[in-house]
Amino acid sequence: MKITSLDQVESIPMRMEGAAGVLKQLPLGTADGTPNFSFRVFTLEPDGHTPYHIHDTEHLNYVLQGEGALVDEAGTLHPLKEGDFAFVSPGEKHQYRNTSDALFQMICAVPIAYE
Amino acid sequence: MKITSLDQVESIPMRMEGAAGVLKQLPLGTADGTPNFSFRVFTLEPDGHTPYHIHDTEHLNYVLQGEGALVDEAGTLHPLKEGDFAFVSPGEKHQYRNTSDALFQMICAVPIAYE
Repeated sequence: MKITSLDQVESIPMRMEGAAGVLKQLPLGTADGTPNFSFRVFTLEPDGHTPYHIHDTEHLNYVLQGEGALVDEAGTLHPLKEGDFAFVSPGEKHQYRNTSDALFQMICAVPIAYE
Repeated sequence: MKITSLDQVESIPMRMEGAAGVLKQLPLGTADGTPNFSFRVFTLEPDGHTPYHIHDTEHLNYVLQGEGALVDEAGTLHPLKEGDFAFVSPGEKHQYRNTSDALFQMICAVPIAYE
């Protein structure tokens, strides 16, 4: 059993190619013994974005704060705001973008292999 | 790809033995094609609680609102408040309780077999 909050979790820049202005935290993951999936949190600065990419693991999201968008395979932006849930299927090209002047922050849950 | 929010998701009473005053929602689950795990949301009324039980699937939680507690195997209450993350290991006896006079609401992510 573990209880934590984001102010207790290290924050590191996302170094993946195609990412800009993204900080990553891992409040619940394999270091805690999670056997199947992990909770990552991404904080995107204004104009920040994750890579526009494709992989064989899904994402389950919950938006903690701010306003952004989820870009689909066609390049269409789908608005995301605080309180929204999102699901990206395995093999679906996608990108998260901050579309506001404030921080955009979300939980991004993934299988542990993609932690 | 799916985007939703709790006001668009059906809410049903949790009928499990030992549960009281708990509403369940499933914003992201197998009906959406989630291949590995699902996001459930539980809303506990004041004095509401989940079963004090044990099972072989883990829980990954994020507290959306309110104040409650996570009861461990020894019966000790660990406070949970808005913004907290929690992890319960497979095989670990546990219970969630609302310890306040307002609603207590959390994401409870599980493998799809326990959806």
